[in-house]
Amino acid sequence: MITVLSGGVGAARFLRGLIDVVRHDQVTAIVNVGDDLVLNGLHVSPDLDTVTYTLADAIDPERGWGLDGETWQAMETLGRYGGPSWFSLGDRDLGTHLYRTHRLAEGATLTEVTAEIVRAWGLDLRVLPVTDDPLRTMVSTASGEIDFQTYFVGLQHQVPVSAVRFDGIDDARPGPKVIAAVTDAERVIIAPSNPLVSIDPLLAVPGVRDAVEKVRTRCVAVSPIIGGAALKGPADRLLRELGHESTVVGVARLYAPLATTLVIDDVDRELADAVRAEGIEPLVTDTVMRDPTIRAALARTVVDL
Amino acid sequence: MITVLSGGVGAARFLRGLIDVVRHDQVTAIVNVGDDLVLNGLHVSPDLDTVTYTLADAIDPERGWGLDGETWQAMETLGRYGGPSWFSLGDRDLGTHLYRTHRLAEGATLTEVTAEIVRAWGLDLRVLPVTDDPLRTMVSTASGEIDFQTYFVGLQHQVPVSAVRFDGIDDARPGPKVIAAVTDAERVIIAPSNPLVSIDPLLAVPGVRDAVEKVRTRCVAVSPIIGGAALKGPADRLLRELGHESTVVGVARLYAPLATTLVIDDVDRELADAVRAEGIEPLVTDTVMRDPTIRAALARTVVDL
Repeated sequence: MITVLSGGVGAARFLRGLIDVVRHDQVTAIVNVGDDLVLNGLHVSPDLDTVTYTLADAIDPERGWGLDGETWQAMETLGRYGGPSWFSLGDRDLGTHLYRTHRLAEGATLTEVTAEIVRAWGLDLRVLPVTDDPLRTMVSTASGEIDFQTYFVGLQHQVPVSAVRFDGIDDARPGPKVIAAVTDAERVIIAPSNPLVSIDPLLAVPGVRDAVEKVRTRCVAVSPIIGGAALKGPADRLLRELGHESTVVGVARLYAPLATTLVIDDVDRELADAVRAEGIEPLVTDTVMRDPTIRAALARTVVDL
Repeated sequence: MITVLSGGVGAARFLRGLIDVVRHDQVTAIVNVGDDLVLNGLHVSPDLDTVTYTLADAIDPERGWGLDGETWQAMETLGRYGGPSWFSLGDRDLGTHLYRTHRLAEGATLTEVTAEIVRAWGLDLRVLPVTDDPLRTMVSTASGEIDFQTYFVGLQHQVPVSAVRFDGIDDARPGPKVIAAVTDAERVIIAPSNPLVSIDPLLAVPGVRDAVEKVRTRCVAVSPIIGGAALKGPADRLLRELGHESTVVGVARLYAPLATTLVIDDVDRELADAVRAEGIEPLVTDTVMRDPTIRAALARTVVDL
């Protein structure tokens, strides 16, 4: 059994490679929900959907989020009214949000709804929201604290961030199978996701960080930082802005208490010793998942470790 | 100034004829909201939307509801999950529900949101929800009380109804301009809508029936019953099931306290005397709005009365 701590796009691609090399039903993804939002009355879970759509080969390959073959009729009508257009809701994608909102209103948990959605896409792996409780990643900017999607999508993450806070974290309980999925796993993998706004909110749920630390010797992390930069998103900027080093060494420092191996890219080969000095063993390989062969090879490397 | 008491499809067609013969800004429609529902988190106002879309020539002419050129991608995704499919939400139409839900969550009233939507479709008439308060038409069936849309759409109005109740009516206040729109009108028109589930919930809002009765001499009703049947929908069945006569005479009996004239169709010519005997003056003309010429002629007749 393999358990992956997962954010959105990067983690989804890693997971997609993983199910090429191990059976679906051996994999559990524990997914960040700090990016969730209620938009125009609908409960949107961007990371959960990115993982599901990617694993189902239904993701839009250009955008990296949302569904392939998407249309935008609802957004066009919303635009006629001058309604909020900063967060694009595709017509196909809307069906997922309508279903999730409907089931949550019926009293289902996010864990239950997510399992239903994942199954409907023909996937046998477990996708677990890290918590069923409300948890919202908030970022402090010069003009005040804003929710993560306003920062990430609304402002295209182009403003400096001085702090990150997880609203609701004190009352958040891990989802029903989350702790066991960590504790019972033969291998725990921290996916190549943003350490501060994808992996941290997940670890911050009371009990999760402890559980991961306890299985540290079975845990391996994949660096989302390659040559000092993030492939996508603001991970590098956020690391710098929040006082970390935006290199694999900075990532090593964050993950050393949690994992015994850090997978870093070939381009960071010369930083391997510095990584080791942080107390985590570097494993150097090609981590840029350009195509199915490379992503499967990366998954194979991590699994066989 | 002309004020029209309005349900959905029949009233919308009548209003469409009306704005062919008088200026938009002379017309106010007071619209039923007893059919409203919250579906998958979205606030749906079927009668308001039917009126707006019809007046904007954007209604689907085949179905008589929803938008022309509609697509159904969201419903297809929802169907993948086995989500509720009994109430069809078109992709274009969804933009309206998203906007309405968004603005209501921001604290706008339904009156305000409706005005924004109507304006966005290039219409200058006033479309007023009869109330901004929650009001839900409930019908009693052999298997219990259900909301109106479950009866009308879910069960295709194919079950007998033993009672109609307007949930929330005691606390419902007329929308801010509703009473004045009745009192100040030179002509009040009861549109050819279902008397029991479109016009009644509107009149039942405290103050509205009184206001209409006070301007009775300026009020004219158009019969939705033609030759003993409704053109569309269950008005005839409901009249019978709830102890009324499903003829223009039955309609006359309901509307005599509210209006001095009842417009009936040519096919009901021989019932004119029986209508008059109920205390309301019959006006016989072609009321089947087959085409723009006939609907404009009907509007002209009612306005010139």
